[in-house]
Amino acid sequence: MSENSTEPLMENPAAEKSGRAESIVLVNTGDGKGKSSAAFGVMIRGIARGWDVAVVQFVKSGNWNVGEEKIGRQLGVDWFNEGEGFTWNSEDLEHDKAVARKGWAQAQSLIEANEHQLIVLDELTYLINWGWIDPEPVYEAIRNRPPKVNIVVTGRDAPQELIDVADTVSEVRKVKHAFDEGILAKKGIDY
Amino acid sequence: MSENSTEPLMENPAAEKSGRAESIVLVNTGDGKGKSSAAFGVMIRGIARGWDVAVVQFVKSGNWNVGEEKIGRQLGVDWFNEGEGFTWNSEDLEHDKAVARKGWAQAQSLIEANEHQLIVLDELTYLINWGWIDPEPVYEAIRNRPPKVNIVVTGRDAPQELIDVADTVSEVRKVKHAFDEGILAKKGIDY
Repeated sequence: MSENSTEPLMENPAAEKSGRAESIVLVNTGDGKGKSSAAFGVMIRGIARGWDVAVVQFVKSGNWNVGEEKIGRQLGVDWFNEGEGFTWNSEDLEHDKAVARKGWAQAQSLIEANEHQLIVLDELTYLINWGWIDPEPVYEAIRNRPPKVNIVVTGRDAPQELIDVADTVSEVRKVKHAFDEGILAKKGIDY
Repeated sequence: MSENSTEPLMENPAAEKSGRAESIVLVNTGDGKGKSSAAFGVMIRGIARGWDVAVVQFVKSGNWNVGEEKIGRQLGVDWFNEGEGFTWNSEDLEHDKAVARKGWAQAQSLIEANEHQLIVLDELTYLINWGWIDPEPVYEAIRNRPPKVNIVVTGRDAPQELIDVADTVSEVRKVKHAFDEGILAKKGIDY
């Protein structure tokens, strides 16, 4: 990890800064489009810095031909599809809960392993909000992570306890969505 | 461009969709972190689809060692730093306005050229909001773009006219920011 930069961010050029974090926790939540996209933008920045990056996707099916996975793997990201087994329609709830628990166990191992400087936990909030995993170990694992492991969590309705352990939280609010006007999801833009 | 997909989006699995757009316009606005990151996430998806992608950055300085540019160029993106000349402190306002006008002219040429299926106009809203470029030609160029040119615009305070020409608009709202607690921008995460 580089430690030699003090350039200000464009969005806050005059900010006075008094501390330096060894790592940070970002949460992208809200009902708008762009939560996961922003996480993959951060993934790109981490790769550019020479970091070891891991992505855990908790919900999206491995059958969807998702562009960020293809490019991420191509760029050396360790990619884990933990949502492959979801049935999505609650026909087999116990199965889905087991998939969720296995997914979180994978993420927890990754955090504790201290082998990546950036770990993206994509759509983790759903597992918490649906009651499929015990939330306390999630907050504990993030709070007690190795000092140089940066974490990005995405998903709607981030619980307050998750916001509490985060350094930066953005809520992506839907102002207008193409769906509302009857336009289909566009490959290359939406997935 | 692929035309053969009807898979639903994860976030809206049950949505009824009645139309298919040839291209869409996304706007990421608001005061929170993640507007540009999300645009670069979309860039990755476009690249994965085999699209020709262009990025125009209107504000950030070319001197900042920005990770998304390095990886974007590596992946074949046509990258234009139109903000290199900004002085940032209004010591030479006419110079900055000229840089802005030149930057927009570049973007307009790219749109009209119809050579890219995705064009990211990063931080374009500032040029409009600061009165440095004439806004009407911007809305015109986006509205009258070639049918298969998708456009993503980022920046705070998107004007209503820009929202009107967009298909999907997300507002990234700051819930909590590391700056507020005195933590420095982290290389690899913020820039």
